[in-house]
Amino acid sequence: MKDHVYQHIELTGTSTTTIEDAVSRAIKRAHKTVKKLSWFQVLETRGHLDKGKVQHWQVTIKAGFTLED
Amino acid sequence: MKDHVYQHIELTGTSTTTIEDAVSRAIKRAHKTVKKLSWFQVLETRGHLDKGKVQHWQVTIKAGFTLED
Amino acid sequence: MKDHVYQHIELTGTSTTTIEDAVSRAIKRAHKTVKKLSWFQVLETRGHLDKGKVQHWQVTIKAGFTLED
Amino acid sequence: MKDHVYQHIELTGTSTTTIEDAVSRAIKRAHKTVKKLSWFQVLETRGHLDKGKVQHWQVTIKAGFTLED
Amino acid sequence: MKDHVYQHIELTGTSTTTIEDAVSRAIKRAHKTVKKLSWFQVLETRGHLDKGKVQHWQVTIKAGFTLED
Amino acid sequence: MKDHVYQHIELTGTSTTTIEDAVSRAIKRAHKTVKKLSWFQVLETRGHLDKGKVQHWQVTIKAGFTLED
Amino acid sequence: MKDHVYQHIELTGTSTTTIEDAVSRAIKRAHKTVKKLSWFQVLETRGHLDKGKVQHWQVTIKAGFTLED
Amino acid sequence: MKDHVYQHIELTGTSTTTIEDAVSRAIKRAHKTVKKLSWFQVLETRGHLDKGKVQHWQVTIKAGFTLED
Amino acid sequence: MKDHVYQHIELTGTSTTTIEDAVSRAIKRAHKTVKKLSWFQVLETRGHLDKGKVQHWQVTIKAGFTLED
Amino acid sequence: MKDHVYQHIELTGTSTTTIEDAVSRAIKRAHKTVKKLSWFQVLETRGHLDKGKVQHWQVTIKAGFTLED
Amino acid sequence: MKDHVYQHIELTGTSTTTIEDAVSRAIKRAHKTVKKLSWFQVLETRGHLDKGKVQHWQVTIKAGFTLED
Amino acid sequence: MKDHVYQHIELTGTSTTTIEDAVSRAIKRAHKTVKKLSWFQVLETRGHLDKGKVQHWQVTIKAGFTLED
Repeated sequence: MKDHVYQHIELTGTSTTTIEDAVSRAIKRAHKTVKKLSWFQVLETRGHLDKGKVQHWQVTIKAGFTLED
Repeated sequence: MKDHVYQHIELTGTSTTTIEDAVSRAIKRAHKTVKKLSWFQVLETRGHLDKGKVQHWQVTIKAGFTLED
Repeated sequence: MKDHVYQHIELTGTSTTTIEDAVSRAIKRAHKTVKKLSWFQVLETRGHLDKGKVQHWQVTIKAGFTLED
Repeated sequence: MKDHVYQHIELTGTSTTTIEDAVSRAIKRAHKTVKKLSWFQVLETRGHLDKGKVQHWQVTIKAGFTLED
Repeated sequence: MKDHVYQHIELTGTSTTTIEDAVSRAIKRAHKTVKKLSWFQVLETRGHLDKGKVQHWQVTIKAGFTLED
Repeated sequence: MKDHVYQHIELTGTSTTTIEDAVSRAIKRAHKTVKKLSWFQVLETRGHLDKGKVQHWQVTIKAGFTLED
Repeated sequence: MKDHVYQHIELTGTSTTTIEDAVSRAIKRAHKTVKKLSWFQVLETRGHLDKGKVQHWQVTIKAGFTLED
Repeated sequence: MKDHVYQHIELTGTSTTTIEDAVSRAIKRAHKTVKKLSWFQVLETRGHLDKGKVQHWQVTIKAGFTLED
Repeated sequence: MKDHVYQHIELTGTSTTTIEDAVSRAIKRAHKTVKKLSWFQVLETRGHLDKGKVQHWQVTIKAGFTLED
Repeated sequence: MKDHVYQHIELTGTSTTTIEDAVSRAIKRAHKTVKKLSWFQVLETRGHLDKGKVQHWQVTIKAGFTLED
Repeated sequence: MKDHVYQHIELTGTSTTTIEDAVSRAIKRAHKTVKKLSWFQVLETRGHLDKGKVQHWQVTIKAGFTLED
Repeated sequence: MKDHVYQHIELTGTSTTTIEDAVSRAIKRAHKTVKKLSWFQVLETRGHLDKGKVQHWQVTIKAGFTLED
């Protein structure tokens, strides 16, 4: 918890199975280009329906990462 | 994404196991009378407790369906 | 649903696995000192990240219990 | 608190006397067509004014009822 | 409902008895200087306590009135 | 402004041209089955994009109508 | 208004009659263990329904009291 | 952007045609008595309905103006 | 805390130094025309930037004053 | 609606004419550097005033685009 | 960041000088009875006015502490 | 206030001394890579505590900058 500055990005992950999986997929993808992700917050949980079933969970998160000096 | 009009309904599903299961049960029940449900959004997650354990997950959602012309 | 008075407490539970597990751990711990917990509401879902993975789910809840007369 | 599914409806009741009366009138009217109403939440309290007096209290509520299986 | 323009003012009324009385007192006082008040909305209900009793109900409202052309 | 009870429904109208047109289409469609619609409130304005252009405006409204006694 | 520090607690009072009575009951109960309660704010007004009538008003408040030095 | 102090007023403009027209009418009216209006923010968009058509757009804005020293 | 009625006004104060100074300037200016200001609440803290530095803190407050009977 | 991950950006478009034009200009500009924009949501509608007229509509949106795998 | 459970308390600190001082006084007082306070969040900044000056800054915070197993 | 398009970024600045310093550090860091920052808004003020004292102020802001044509 040094005198760092953090930037936040907003992402939506999707999953056919669970809310947790949708979050993990968004984080995994973001990690490819942003290395120092340290926390996230769930902003919204939505989903796509077809024939009375949830086809995709769509979870929107805000994730924070450290900006290098 | 034609020039459709959609209506939304608000539902609470309950489950003894998971948040996802509570949502799926609400959608499954609504599908009996409303056929063209296409999306949902979680509005609130609550639960009933007894003896220090979650007895029921109660998840309130808003779901949208296409109105026939 | 007698003419009871209820008090609410706010807690954050943590889990390496799921949102449901984080809630259950918070309730279980609170139950050690507060016996008549009867409901909860999820206020916020956050998490700690490291190396592109969720290390901890941190779920903040508000839980209500009956005050003895 | 079985594994029920609940639906919510939004209503505005009006009264010349009190907030409680406006809520009761909305519930009484809804009960004519929806039998299993079990809870409500006040969403908004407004009113109509004339000559410096409240003419009508207008209270908007969300009410929940059990969906039959 | 002509092509009028309305202005809103925010007021807090106080009462030792009820929420409705606190609102009515705020409206009555505002009516002394603003004649065309036509609606209000409750924004907040607070109160002052002493010795375990409510001494004053403090209800904050937003009220709208017609601006003369 | 008699002692009526009003019910609210939530709708999303879509339009390729304007926000006002999307609202009007939602109201027009709802009017086919609900006759006494008397007011609406815009809840959300979203849209669908393709090739850097807005393809559809999607405006979600809450509309109120009088319940017959 | 000295350099005091205040703590807040959240309570739900219930009543079969009015919103004001539900608040007063919550305050009266809290006063048994917390002596210096000085203000409250209404957070939520809900209720329990049966047979088309309000059985209980459930009013959630936040109340503040002075912490002794 | 000197060390000015600004005051805000809340207005509702109405129009039979568009949201933009309703805002412009509110601003035009306010300008008769308040000269240094410099910005506004839309707070709410509502409307009056009759026979399945929007009769009036009612747009509530908050507008800011410079207070003379 | 008599049976007074209070009115609220919304102001934005600006300062090149601190948030507290911006609030104090708004209050000082309002006090020229409104004598019985008794409380305020911060609604929003914004600022103007130039060359990577804060040029002005812009703090919006709501302030309440007693209306004479 | 594959298992994609989406990122969101927040933009403010300005226009001298309409809200829709302000949104379209923001999207058009963003499309120069971000190709797969698929939706937007209006977050805030503000404007700049001079001489009692709206000089610029300033509409803030959140827009989502697909992240390539 | 072990599998801890945290509890939150809400406090209001007051100060005649700054927002930071009001927060610090609330934390200092709470620390007398709650040892493992680890974070806080500002919920509201208000103040008491007299003669056109801020007499007290009143800052409400939510603070979290670790619950012992 | 030309027909510009602005983009917003969300940042958290940290400081051991004041809220203003935390904001300034976030802006200063962002200015290294984004030149045309013109305004900011405070979204959240939090902090890290140890031994009953604020160790770091963590202030989250949204900052806007002009997009080149």
